[in-house]
Amino acid sequence: MVTEQQFSSLLLEEAVTQLSRLPGVGRKTALRLALHLLRQEPSVAQALGNSIIKLREGIKYCKVCHNISEEDVCPICASPLRDGSTVCVVENVKDVMSFENTGQYRGLYHVLGGLISPVDGIGPDKLQIDSLVERVKQGAVKEVILALSATMEGDTTNFYIYRKLEGLPVKITQLARGVSVGNEIEYTDEITLGRSLVNRTLFKDSFGKG
Amino acid sequence: MVTEQQFSSLLLEEAVTQLSRLPGVGRKTALRLALHLLRQEPSVAQALGNSIIKLREGIKYCKVCHNISEEDVCPICASPLRDGSTVCVVENVKDVMSFENTGQYRGLYHVLGGLISPVDGIGPDKLQIDSLVERVKQGAVKEVILALSATMEGDTTNFYIYRKLEGLPVKITQLARGVSVGNEIEYTDEITLGRSLVNRTLFKDSFGKG
Repeated sequence: MVTEQQFSSLLLEEAVTQLSRLPGVGRKTALRLALHLLRQEPSVAQALGNSIIKLREGIKYCKVCHNISEEDVCPICASPLRDGSTVCVVENVKDVMSFENTGQYRGLYHVLGGLISPVDGIGPDKLQIDSLVERVKQGAVKEVILALSATMEGDTTNFYIYRKLEGLPVKITQLARGVSVGNEIEYTDEITLGRSLVNRTLFKDSFGKG
Repeated sequence: MVTEQQFSSLLLEEAVTQLSRLPGVGRKTALRLALHLLRQEPSVAQALGNSIIKLREGIKYCKVCHNISEEDVCPICASPLRDGSTVCVVENVKDVMSFENTGQYRGLYHVLGGLISPVDGIGPDKLQIDSLVERVKQGAVKEVILALSATMEGDTTNFYIYRKLEGLPVKITQLARGVSVGNEIEYTDEITLGRSLVNRTLFKDSFGKG
């Protein structure tokens, strides 16, 4: 039985309501967080509140790879130390972090912003696929690594991108299926991720196999 | 194995650091929350950030009962509908909400701000006990209900307050021991809390029993 808490303060009510809009935070947890903040120095709540506001106001998306960035071009795309001939296509910003944490990749990224999923109403036009094709057409990219989750949505998106890039002078590879089928990138350990990068295979070789 | 995430943005780094200072929020959860906020409309982060800052800045403590309040005197103490002759002594602000939710109490509260706990360095001088004695000495209070957790710290605090109030013309009661011994008020269901209020007993009657 969940009862609505009766708050003695509208400010507390508002803070609890706002906190409980976060994913995985119910009203009970939100109340606990709010009361915790009330017990701390005022500077703690101030710093938290400001960091949340600045985060949303200050963060842009890299116009090359669509990763989050504070500049027009993100530090990875701007770095002269990265290999501009290789582009790793990932679903989201978190996946970029996961691959960066493997320490095994020196190329660039392309963040799709999701996967094709007709059930959720996400078509190819809602993803950064056209900009990927444009990027490849500019000629500097020699290899596109498809690094999407080994799910139905990931496979669908892989195939869609493959069709779009087919015929362009670029090698299309995908992660070695060291990633367990059915699992999401986000929950895969970094050793497996690193190995799946090293063993990436030609996308067309995967047709007609088991 | 926990690895430090490598962030492409200092703003994201800062938001994750601040969010992970909340109780029960690790860096992984903090990152998830931050990325969630990035996916929402800017107004969502704005509202959350502002509510947190305003919460800490705007909330005062009632100068009568020490409950949180936006005014000098909280709505409960200020209400003409409440019975000013009964004062329920509770550990913290959350316990006030729990008792309010039982719908069985029309008196006032007194929030101690903690329990006596020598192990944690909390002596009676750090709690709102002197102000409770002052309140009783003013004469309007006819009954003090001790509504602290049924733990060693709660029992110690109950007894300390009883000694301080002994001799004053006030009835001192405690919650019926319907509250399971060893449990905290915060985790007790509201039906049990309501019953324990109705069946409260004279504090001195508990000596030499059990």
